[in-house]
Amino acid sequence: MTDRKIYLDNAATTIPRESVIKTVSDAMRESYNPSALYLDALKISNKISAAREVVKSALGARDGELIFTSGGTESNNMALTCSRMKKGSRVIIGEGEHDSVFKTASVLRDVEVVFAPIKPDGGVDEEKFKALLCDNVSFVSIMHVSNETGAVNDIEKLAKLTKRASKNAIFHSDGVQAFLKEDVDLAKLGVDLYSVSAHKVHGPKGIGALYIKRGTPIRPLLTGGGQEKGLRSGTESYPLIAGFCEAVKSFDPTEREQVANFKAEFLEKLLESVDGVRVISPIGGVSNILTLAFEGVRGEVLLHSLEDYGILVGTGSACASHHESRFKRLFALEDGYVDGVIRMSFSIDNDMSEIDYIVSAISACVNKLRLDKRK
Amino acid sequence: MTDRKIYLDNAATTIPRESVIKTVSDAMRESYNPSALYLDALKISNKISAAREVVKSALGARDGELIFTSGGTESNNMALTCSRMKKGSRVIIGEGEHDSVFKTASVLRDVEVVFAPIKPDGGVDEEKFKALLCDNVSFVSIMHVSNETGAVNDIEKLAKLTKRASKNAIFHSDGVQAFLKEDVDLAKLGVDLYSVSAHKVHGPKGIGALYIKRGTPIRPLLTGGGQEKGLRSGTESYPLIAGFCEAVKSFDPTEREQVANFKAEFLEKLLESVDGVRVISPIGGVSNILTLAFEGVRGEVLLHSLEDYGILVGTGSACASHHESRFKRLFALEDGYVDGVIRMSFSIDNDMSEIDYIVSAISACVNKLRLDKRK
Repeated sequence: MTDRKIYLDNAATTIPRESVIKTVSDAMRESYNPSALYLDALKISNKISAAREVVKSALGARDGELIFTSGGTESNNMALTCSRMKKGSRVIIGEGEHDSVFKTASVLRDVEVVFAPIKPDGGVDEEKFKALLCDNVSFVSIMHVSNETGAVNDIEKLAKLTKRASKNAIFHSDGVQAFLKEDVDLAKLGVDLYSVSAHKVHGPKGIGALYIKRGTPIRPLLTGGGQEKGLRSGTESYPLIAGFCEAVKSFDPTEREQVANFKAEFLEKLLESVDGVRVISPIGGVSNILTLAFEGVRGEVLLHSLEDYGILVGTGSACASHHESRFKRLFALEDGYVDGVIRMSFSIDNDMSEIDYIVSAISACVNKLRLDKRK
Repeated sequence: MTDRKIYLDNAATTIPRESVIKTVSDAMRESYNPSALYLDALKISNKISAAREVVKSALGARDGELIFTSGGTESNNMALTCSRMKKGSRVIIGEGEHDSVFKTASVLRDVEVVFAPIKPDGGVDEEKFKALLCDNVSFVSIMHVSNETGAVNDIEKLAKLTKRASKNAIFHSDGVQAFLKEDVDLAKLGVDLYSVSAHKVHGPKGIGALYIKRGTPIRPLLTGGGQEKGLRSGTESYPLIAGFCEAVKSFDPTEREQVANFKAEFLEKLLESVDGVRVISPIGGVSNILTLAFEGVRGEVLLHSLEDYGILVGTGSACASHHESRFKRLFALEDGYVDGVIRMSFSIDNDMSEIDYIVSAISACVNKLRLDKRK
């Protein structure tokens, strides 16, 4: 065991920036209820509005409203369960969606839910998607970036195809893994609903947002005091909103390049040092996610072996850690690789100088596990 | 205007304890996803379990589970919209419930929703409640303490009456204003569902909980990764959970007495100095809430006048500040008083030495407003 910690599971959650932690602390001291009538409360309400504009601007959310939610799961649940869907209409859900979409689809009633197949790299198969479209489609949910592989779907194209087939269809995209990782311009993407989460972008946990394009027929998931223009009741957590805003404001676009360089150099060195590796993530995938399969190794065992080196990685969606079989099948891996999947996801907290150490640790672990197996 | 601030709207929200702010900050630095497989994540998961036990213990929640939610509104929404209710059955909702219950009742379908009348002091009228009971009742929601007046309902009795009339009925109580203000022993109260919120007890905003008695037929409101034993998906916000736990742990029962003494002395001095005051809150109401009506004064105008003295009060539920007409009628006030309602709510942050200042400020404001009116 080592005290050194190298955190490579940033798609599960990120470590908040110090400025975010400070912002949340400071905001906790300004703790009026923004719905109250006195000026000090109105000031908080105005700060929430300003924070909302910062997040909207980062998303190019010019054509609609952005409401704060408790996170990506709530945003996705609201999109799926509160959007208007005509009885008997068709709902298309990506086969590789996060559980907060995929499993939530199973609670929908009086509609025909069909799943859009994904390719082995985790991206939606566009031809197969097209084949599912018809003028009876009322709702589509396709993630922008796969949390499993980092594959980037062409949401602009898929939304256009959808609207062409069924002009009143609502197009939702789960943007949790895309926000601040890809260029997101919602007005250009043409989506009606878009989910984001703060804790994936070095913000606090417990806060996310749902973009709602003007005119989209959606009702609130949480009703009550009528906060968030009646679309999401509950006392606003100004500290979390301020922290989310700070995470967005302090993001620097050059960070994306830094992470991409880390991933590229890491992958190159890894493939030089370790054989029997399949790269599941597509070329052109998001800069921070790298999903790999190691021959003759169990992903979970490799994960725990790497822990002894202070290296923390994932095996796909943290939430779904115990039921990842859906993806094992979808990745279409050969027998020797099917159990050997790990997901590494990087952030600005990772340093190029760590790469050699990580590669040598993986190499040592993989070699040992393969050797143990042969014994 | 003055820089002095005396915050008397603690039923809207409280200022977090310094120890809570520190706990949240520290926890934000331990930012692993508790669903991940490595030991550091498991440690967070264990800390969440420990925090859950602290909150459960403070509630006497021995007979069931406690799940963390994003706050009182979500807990109430889940109770109302996710509990099993037989088609055509009767649902009883208190007429004085918080909007997150009262308005949410209007989304229920295929059931008969009836409202249990309240008395002018804000408490449920037990005789009228009894008259609504029958063996077809599937669900009841009656708040423990009224956020409007501080009236305390005898939940143990109401739950017993309900179960006697309809043994499978689910009894929910919104305990947001009761938690740590009244003795709450859920096993003794006999409720099936109970909602609490952290930010009303000097904890962080954005976190609450729902108690679910073992065997209660309820489905999750948020589905996805299956966190919180499958009952509330979404990455747990460990920092908020830790902050909630700290607020509960650092609560000292003597604080309640301190607040009760403050209220008693304040009321006595107020009634000595100002005439034309109706006390809406019942004797025996919760220790921290005092709702008053001033003759010939508009509550909202008084609220703003008091702001000039640095005194912040409410006019009833902050959330519902613009639609309080429901309560104006329920309080059954005489014409001269009906618009003059303000709610003052106290906390350990208030100091006895402030009372004379507050009373003289109210006296000055009320006299001036009455004089202005006569001109």
